Amino acid sequence: MNIAVAQSGGPTCAINASLVGVFKQGLLTKEIDAIFGSINGIEGMIHDKLLNLKSVIRTNEDMELLRQTPSTMLGSCRYKLPNYEENPDIYEKILHTFEIHRIGVFIYIGGNDSMDTVVKLSAYLKQIGSDVKIIGVPKTIDNDLPITDHTPGFGSASKYVATTVQEIIRDSCVYSLPSVTIIEIMGRNSGWLTASTCMLRANGEEAPHLIYLPETNFSAEKFIEDVKKEMAKHKAVIIAVSEGVNFETENSGIEDFQSGAVDNFGHKYLSGIGKFLERFVADRIGCKVRSIELNVMQRCSSHICSKTDIDEAERIGRHALKTALNGETGKMMYFKRISDMPYAVTIEMTDAVNVANLEKKFPKEWISPEQNQVTDTAISYFLPLIQGKVDIYRKNGLPVHFKRPLR
Amino acid sequence: MNIAVAQSGGPTCAINASLVGVFKQGLLTKEIDAIFGSINGIEGMIHDKLLNLKSVIRTNEDMELLRQTPSTMLGSCRYKLPNYEENPDIYEKILHTFEIHRIGVFIYIGGNDSMDTVVKLSAYLKQIGSDVKIIGVPKTIDNDLPITDHTPGFGSASKYVATTVQEIIRDSCVYSLPSVTIIEIMGRNSGWLTASTCMLRANGEEAPHLIYLPETNFSAEKFIEDVKKEMAKHKAVIIAVSEGVNFETENSGIEDFQSGAVDNFGHKYLSGIGKFLERFVADRIGCKVRSIELNVMQRCSSHICSKTDIDEAERIGRHALKTALNGETGKMMYFKRISDMPYAVTIEMTDAVNVANLEKKFPKEWISPEQNQVTDTAISYFLPLIQGKVDIYRKNGLPVHFKRPLR
Repeated sequence: MNIAVAQSGGPTCAINASLVGVFKQGLLTKEIDAIFGSINGIEGMIHDKLLNLKSVIRTNEDMELLRQTPSTMLGSCRYKLPNYEENPDIYEKILHTFEIHRIGVFIYIGGNDSMDTVVKLSAYLKQIGSDVKIIGVPKTIDNDLPITDHTPGFGSASKYVATTVQEIIRDSCVYSLPSVTIIEIMGRNSGWLTASTCMLRANGEEAPHLIYLPETNFSAEKFIEDVKKEMAKHKAVIIAVSEGVNFETENSGIEDFQSGAVDNFGHKYLSGIGKFLERFVADRIGCKVRSIELNVMQRCSSHICSKTDIDEAERIGRHALKTALNGETGKMMYFKRISDMPYAVTIEMTDAVNVANLEKKFPKEWISPEQNQVTDTAISYFLPLIQGKVDIYRKNGLPVHFKRPLR
Repeated sequence: MNIAVAQSGGPTCAINASLVGVFKQGLLTKEIDAIFGSINGIEGMIHDKLLNLKSVIRTNEDMELLRQTPSTMLGSCRYKLPNYEENPDIYEKILHTFEIHRIGVFIYIGGNDSMDTVVKLSAYLKQIGSDVKIIGVPKTIDNDLPITDHTPGFGSASKYVATTVQEIIRDSCVYSLPSVTIIEIMGRNSGWLTASTCMLRANGEEAPHLIYLPETNFSAEKFIEDVKKEMAKHKAVIIAVSEGVNFETENSGIEDFQSGAVDNFGHKYLSGIGKFLERFVADRIGCKVRSIELNVMQRCSSHICSKTDIDEAERIGRHALKTALNGETGKMMYFKRISDMPYAVTIEMTDAVNVANLEKKFPKEWISPEQNQVTDTAISYFLPLIQGKVDIYRKNGLPVHFKRPLR
């Protein structure tokens, strides 16, 4: 029997580690011959674009390098499988790829959209009496999947964010003038990554002084009041804000801000919340203010990845293959936390339908009554996820990345 | 005798290491009693705001932590000393601070503006027959000081930039659509930091495919032609661009771009070159395009600092104090490169007037004839500066920073 694995959705620092987990477990399993990688997620299955992974990952060093390499070695996709009734052809194409390559197991590493693919594909295969098993492995820096305690990729992202915010705090305290620094952090619908900056309190930082998440209503007027209060206490006020904070309609202004500005090509500006709040503070308070967007570095800064995250991502990939070989299908693997301190998780499975297209928000009870901070309870949730340092391979002083050979 | 030290200009990862160098050498020198830190650069000298460093840096661990901490522990300033004739009071205030604290040596760590202070202050002191010695220590991530082979702070900044650009390259190759990624890098007048991304070629990266520096004339039309040529060769085109690229006036458009867009507070948008080129590519080529600004992370990402840079910054700080104690004044210390491979530098001194207010541009002979790339010769200049890894102190998985106690 052969197996196949694919990667889907936005890149993370840990998604290649999950691929290595599937690959390693495949090597250990006698009944498995070829291990295929599907190029660009499920699209590779539809168009029969497969890579024989044993011919690409040849040494232990290759495996370790791949574990440390950010982004998706196999490429990714944003393709959402249509319902069978809408487009049966797609399903038949995938089935055809499974059949001609004798693929008995397909592991799909991705977020809640990818779990939708796991649900649909496994249901289709069951219905036609196929024996191919489909198992999902979670991944997303957003940490917004239900059921699982956390998602692979989140630990490394939050380690990068907390480390970088701490450095920005130092950078912000340099001059004698009062100042406001606004740091825009990824998270369109959930604030996990932004909230995780609260970890800096464990190392004695008071900042970020204000933390705003999409889980609360955001009022621009209240924001200005909050900033003024903090400016009375601190010379350099540091603010962490989720890209997706949720404006109260009566106070909005951000749509006007974005739609009011048109460049000389006639394009609307798509400025983020950071730039918006920077302007707002400049206008309403008039102090020195700057905004910083952490951008894609949040999801690809493997040079400072969390060893816990990378190790867990590999482990959950291995478990996924074992689970498929036990005859399961239509499941997603997940982490169940047994204890914060000492930290311990087990790996369990759930029906992928419990995760597909669903989101897990940051808990309301971990948000301060003022809705501008995160409680200390959250710190013990976050801290275990960023522990440990991967010994990064370097050449010429720079990390070495695993690169997929051209086909 | 007592001595004093101050930090000036923009933060870097290495400026605290130079402070540690001065401090350590001070500890080793019998005739030196107190070692003062001047708060916010020369402003601390004017307003007599000094910190007794021996009461703040108490242990070897403190010294090591401070070496690893980004930004300026003593705070910084952008204050430029007026000419004596314009404001003799300022000079007398500084002299008064020297006298009441029995300060015989003042070490000023900073860029070309700070060397102007070294020139003016040392000339004044000589003229009035004072024995106080003033020595400058270079620092800037821009690497744009004349005479010195390179500046402390640059190696760590370029290590961060090259490492991060490599990670962005991985992040950019994920989807099957053609795309353009534009990375905006610091450097208003000189392109050293942007050019240093050529180091990735030593590790087998083809990208950045295009590199634009302030040292050449930038034509937006030529840029579009360049991008189209690269898109014919690569699915994901990566471009490194200095924030200060120099538009040919006939092609400008950037002023229109910046001045044409006004937000609903009536403010002009001050978008950077990255955002401008993103819009331009979207308009003229119509492909998937994004821009990323590396922002202050370039100057404060100590978690990935260069050991060569930090060690050299400390060493040049020590030499500065030795030089002052040898009776020199009005000098700046600098690095003279003896060899690229194996790498060796000596520390020399020059009259600060040779550096004050002057800039060193990236050499024209290291820029490709097409003015959109950097030659291989530059790689052997850059590579030695990013070598070595500092063993970062961590607590709870996060770097530990040295924090100045409140006075």
